[in-house]
Amino acid sequence: MLAVKLKDTYKDLDGQKVTMQGWVRTNRGSKKAGFIELNDGSTFSNVQVVYKPEQTADYEAVSKITLGSAIEVTGTLKATPGAKQDYEIQADSVEVLGASDHEYPLQKKRHSFEYLRTIPSVRPRANTYYAMFRLRSVLSMAIHRFFQDRGFVYVHTPIITGNDAEGAGECFTVTTRADDKYDQDFFAKHAQLTVSGQLHVEPFALTYRNVYTFGPTFRAENSNTTRHASEFWMIEPEMAFADLSDNMDVVEDMIKYCINYVLENAPEEMAFFEKAIDKDCINRVKAVAESDFKRMTYTEAIGHLEQAKDQFENQDIFWGMDLQSEHERYICEQVVKGPVFLTDYPKEIKAFYMRENEDGKTVAACDLLVPYVGELVGGSQREERYDVLKKKMDDLGMNEGSLDWYLDLRRFGGCRHSGFGLGFDRMLMYLSGVQNIRDVQPYPRTPRNLIN
Amino acid sequence: MLAVKLKDTYKDLDGQKVTMQGWVRTNRGSKKAGFIELNDGSTFSNVQVVYKPEQTADYEAVSKITLGSAIEVTGTLKATPGAKQDYEIQADSVEVLGASDHEYPLQKKRHSFEYLRTIPSVRPRANTYYAMFRLRSVLSMAIHRFFQDRGFVYVHTPIITGNDAEGAGECFTVTTRADDKYDQDFFAKHAQLTVSGQLHVEPFALTYRNVYTFGPTFRAENSNTTRHASEFWMIEPEMAFADLSDNMDVVEDMIKYCINYVLENAPEEMAFFEKAIDKDCINRVKAVAESDFKRMTYTEAIGHLEQAKDQFENQDIFWGMDLQSEHERYICEQVVKGPVFLTDYPKEIKAFYMRENEDGKTVAACDLLVPYVGELVGGSQREERYDVLKKKMDDLGMNEGSLDWYLDLRRFGGCRHSGFGLGFDRMLMYLSGVQNIRDVQPYPRTPRNLIN
Repeated sequence: MLAVKLKDTYKDLDGQKVTMQGWVRTNRGSKKAGFIELNDGSTFSNVQVVYKPEQTADYEAVSKITLGSAIEVTGTLKATPGAKQDYEIQADSVEVLGASDHEYPLQKKRHSFEYLRTIPSVRPRANTYYAMFRLRSVLSMAIHRFFQDRGFVYVHTPIITGNDAEGAGECFTVTTRADDKYDQDFFAKHAQLTVSGQLHVEPFALTYRNVYTFGPTFRAENSNTTRHASEFWMIEPEMAFADLSDNMDVVEDMIKYCINYVLENAPEEMAFFEKAIDKDCINRVKAVAESDFKRMTYTEAIGHLEQAKDQFENQDIFWGMDLQSEHERYICEQVVKGPVFLTDYPKEIKAFYMRENEDGKTVAACDLLVPYVGELVGGSQREERYDVLKKKMDDLGMNEGSLDWYLDLRRFGGCRHSGFGLGFDRMLMYLSGVQNIRDVQPYPRTPRNLIN
Repeated sequence: MLAVKLKDTYKDLDGQKVTMQGWVRTNRGSKKAGFIELNDGSTFSNVQVVYKPEQTADYEAVSKITLGSAIEVTGTLKATPGAKQDYEIQADSVEVLGASDHEYPLQKKRHSFEYLRTIPSVRPRANTYYAMFRLRSVLSMAIHRFFQDRGFVYVHTPIITGNDAEGAGECFTVTTRADDKYDQDFFAKHAQLTVSGQLHVEPFALTYRNVYTFGPTFRAENSNTTRHASEFWMIEPEMAFADLSDNMDVVEDMIKYCINYVLENAPEEMAFFEKAIDKDCINRVKAVAESDFKRMTYTEAIGHLEQAKDQFENQDIFWGMDLQSEHERYICEQVVKGPVFLTDYPKEIKAFYMRENEDGKTVAACDLLVPYVGELVGGSQREERYDVLKKKMDDLGMNEGSLDWYLDLRRFGGCRHSGFGLGFDRMLMYLSGVQNIRDVQPYPRTPRNLIN
């Protein structure tokens, strides 16, 4: 008896006895024959199990096996050329390894995402999530392969941090107390969840030249949007001896690599998203993979936006403004008609660590805008000049000592360096067309929402 | 001019003009010639830069370049067959891209690990850490490759969890408040940092069959030992339709794969550890990679320990006891003389989710013991029988509802499944011979210790 898995191919097994384990996706029987759609987790599509009174033991019992049950099928593999699947299994016996009872929360009908979000321990078996969480795994591997193949060192930056002012949003406190006597707390000081690994990874770039993080980050912002979660994964590469242009080269290579990797390694999942979620998703990402990413200054972009301001909901266009999604999308969808890096933003609207340009007004930042979503990646060359950075941190009132170590890197062989951040969950939304970040994460955490 | 990196080989470049960027590890000059050991982060060993008054611009200034400075060297690549490195660079010019000032905390002398732990943003440049954090990256990739090559789906289990009783130690609270009114907190309930991804990953094993986690986990235990950190990374694979024996097969394959992978992909780093930290480390892990891992029941192990009890500090040997490190090491080092799985532990000393054996006294657990460290991996077959698990949770007073979802998996197509946990940081200690967990983590977090 040959134990088989769905993802393998069985050209040569026609007529052989096989055994397969998996979960029942559908089961429909009649007097003469029954059909189970079986999935064993190894690949997106199901195999059809055919059972018949004259062949299958306990026909009556098999016809009553419930949706979601775990079973082991033994039978004959039968090639079915031209059919949706290459083969089916004609069952001699079907053993129930784990039944699902009458409260099983998935039925054959289509369930709403809202409902499925209430059952995170079962929803991975629903098609959209079943496709998504394998895509998530495949994209993770794409990231690691891309950077490791290029000699980047993967750094586990800390989740718990004592840095007060990373300047990227509100933080969760980590404590073993029920009051604010943090000097008596576990770490003998206030501790919080990281909002970004960037500051912590820079010392490693100044050691290994090319490094990256890939881990969870947190924001305690009380905003209930479809694009914000309180816990999400970020990729943050950092490169020494690299300027803004080098930085953009790496972003472009990485995005293209990831797109090609998922098209190659998750083709059934991407085909499902194209069919069920967003008919343009494959064409859209393929077009990006084949584009030359353009580069345009923020100042030039403002010029384009001013000329087209009638089209926007927010028509107050001026140099120094923070661009909204509608503006970003206009630039890449209407002006450039493809992916574009906006560069050299006003320093007031960007983070303190970005390198000030000669003009004294802008910083060497780059945001990658792509059609359909707008901003996908944000990066910059970092301020490597001790005096310039110190003055900036002083002006922002940041110098209470907790980031002295970061500033000091500029006195200890600090040199030109650059990096960027890619929101992993948003990249999944971009690839699949799925609109809500709650539907790309295994256990989404958002305000007043913490299931399991 | 050819920009080169240390890690590449340059057989054919003898005599060519090249340029290289990196950091100064040593610089010693005399009247006639000077030598800079330069490292560019791409590989463990340095390249020698030779500078001479008659060839190198600003000879005097070059001889004063300080340790740790970032420089760019331009000069002639000269093959040096038979020397420690294959080539050296004879400098025409050396440009300082980022100086290190007189407070640079690393000097040529050997610094203690205690001192280096106080400067986590600089210590990656010290040899031991420089080797360790690349090994960490290489081992991470070994893990991902091993599982992805075998079709395992990578799952990002959540860091913030609302589950109260995972039964694996004390927890950090995650909050935006300074009191304990958790019903008014960010998530409208008490939230904490995960101690293990296992419970959260099981639903995915019951969907994809073979899955794994690889992420940070947390313990708020106030214990200052060399083997415990408050934040550490774990790998937790979980496999449906797998029993304890299948589980042990995967553990064995994974450990061997990881050992071979790091020997192949971090040979200089492993050679450094052998030279500087633990002269047995390579032999030790090679022996494990070539062993057949034995299997022995806990009960049998107790028999061996009783016979040898005079040798132990803790001589109170009895069936039902928790084994200490000295006992575990005796079993694998003296009895088996190699890696061994201990199986079928008394149920009272193991976690609630482990499957109860027919004898009613033991559970289908397996701990992998290896020479030199003792326990390296802990795993088990999981209790898939709803009634048995419910009774256990009831008996332990766990049924306050927060793990109902976990219990319910047993009613929703739950089947035989198994998994294990590997402490990633401990695996690094094992491979390198480094004795303190604070020296394998980029930013170690321990009680009253939160630097940067």
